[in-house]
Amino acid sequence: MTQLNLAESKHCFGGQQNRYTHTSASTNCTMTFSAYLPPQAQSAPVPALYWLSGLTCTDENFSTKAGAQRVAAELGVALIIPDTSPRGDGVADDPDGGYDLGLAASFYVDATQEPWKPHYQMYSYITDELPRIVEAELPVTDQRSIFGHSMGGHGALMIALRNPARYAAVSAFSPIVNPAGVPWGHKALGAYLGDDEAAWANYDTVTLVGRAEAADHLPMLVDQGSADQFLEDHLKTDRLATACREAGYDAEIRMQPGYDHSYYFIASFVEEHIRFHADAMDLNAA
Amino acid sequence: MTQLNLAESKHCFGGQQNRYTHTSASTNCTMTFSAYLPPQAQSAPVPALYWLSGLTCTDENFSTKAGAQRVAAELGVALIIPDTSPRGDGVADDPDGGYDLGLAASFYVDATQEPWKPHYQMYSYITDELPRIVEAELPVTDQRSIFGHSMGGHGALMIALRNPARYAAVSAFSPIVNPAGVPWGHKALGAYLGDDEAAWANYDTVTLVGRAEAADHLPMLVDQGSADQFLEDHLKTDRLATACREAGYDAEIRMQPGYDHSYYFIASFVEEHIRFHADAMDLNAA
Repeated sequence: MTQLNLAESKHCFGGQQNRYTHTSASTNCTMTFSAYLPPQAQSAPVPALYWLSGLTCTDENFSTKAGAQRVAAELGVALIIPDTSPRGDGVADDPDGGYDLGLAASFYVDATQEPWKPHYQMYSYITDELPRIVEAELPVTDQRSIFGHSMGGHGALMIALRNPARYAAVSAFSPIVNPAGVPWGHKALGAYLGDDEAAWANYDTVTLVGRAEAADHLPMLVDQGSADQFLEDHLKTDRLATACREAGYDAEIRMQPGYDHSYYFIASFVEEHIRFHADAMDLNAA
Repeated sequence: MTQLNLAESKHCFGGQQNRYTHTSASTNCTMTFSAYLPPQAQSAPVPALYWLSGLTCTDENFSTKAGAQRVAAELGVALIIPDTSPRGDGVADDPDGGYDLGLAASFYVDATQEPWKPHYQMYSYITDELPRIVEAELPVTDQRSIFGHSMGGHGALMIALRNPARYAAVSAFSPIVNPAGVPWGHKALGAYLGDDEAAWANYDTVTLVGRAEAADHLPMLVDQGSADQFLEDHLKTDRLATACREAGYDAEIRMQPGYDHSYYFIASFVEEHIRFHADAMDLNAA
């Protein structure tokens, strides 16, 4: 271990639920992330499934509430769970105190505007720096897959669409699929990227689906609760369905009746998502 | 619904994760509890498995962190998850601000001392009032089983030992087995019950095991993590093992290497516990 500090380690389903801190060159601050290392990682490196969390979350929400470790332990996949933004002294936050900009609301972009630019470089952190450190210092291979929830669903879809060679598959719960076209995204992308619409488009899943080459169509699974309070104004799952249909992208987009935006929804379907990623990584047990 | 107010309802594994409030005659205040109603409860009443939480908890810790709903949904058992103490205006709390007396630290006793006596009647609430209300107003039968964690492990064991006809089985994670003989219990039992040692003994699992008739030996399962920070000073699992051996009580008491006191430990073994209770209630699927 040269770059990672092990801040916490707890036995869980025969493996280890760990928290690490490290100095990040991308975000120019100390970053925290959680990692679940399944029992199989004690004997050989295992593939890594990245989880990106939503607004207001840290690395701990998914770790404590999703019930994902049971399935990860069965299948032998590590869970890598980064924080949702840079944090610490000197890291800018929403001057209006909103939950949807600044701390815990990075939207996983590389900011080009002040005061965000010095630390809000989460796209580079998630796609480049974090995997490089994780693959050098933890018992994981360079086989990666990615999923997330809400703002993190946006992050997972956007990152996978822009880097199809680096991920086996992508899935999302309740994702913001069209940040360029909804209030949450307008506020955040406008602050982080300014008025440059081309820059916004690079972070917009609906746009990226339209641009994707057929050869780059990763397996994609999306679950959306029909009783989700944010569906109508911010999530707009139908726009992803339309974009996939028009692009000939064979994604599985499911509306789950009665479910809301909470971790009770995530917990109910996380096993299916992890098995979906394991299939794409050829990991499922016979 | 005449006595229960449904405060929250969320879809979870095909069933409902609900929160209720109601006026309690035992504790003389408004009580909150959570209940998971599995899909099977939509067509016919199901048995109820009670969970008692530990110090500092509310009804939400187990609901959000244990991952129990998946197994409850498979087996068709309701989870009833009460709060850990009375709360609200006029409810006494530890004058020294400790976490181990007063709010969230009832130890599930009926207090006989001031200022606790008017509200801290949790033994009566858990054993009598709550099941009566639940069985009258929710789709559950009067078939009950009980488990818990830490202070709630103490509560589950003590309640089952004193009411063997009312529960199918009992299990516990990291229970306080001998409150009359450890610092946590000394402080709490002394405050709630005064100096009456006979009163303490009625709430002490090690003592109650010694008194139990062989015909009343319910199935008992206990899991304890070997890396639990509270094991040496407060939990003293060895005293339960000794008491069971001396009493000829055929309990299963397991030391789990490396696990600590957290919900990561509970989540790792909760499925085995729920199946243990389901076996005792003749619920396990073929």
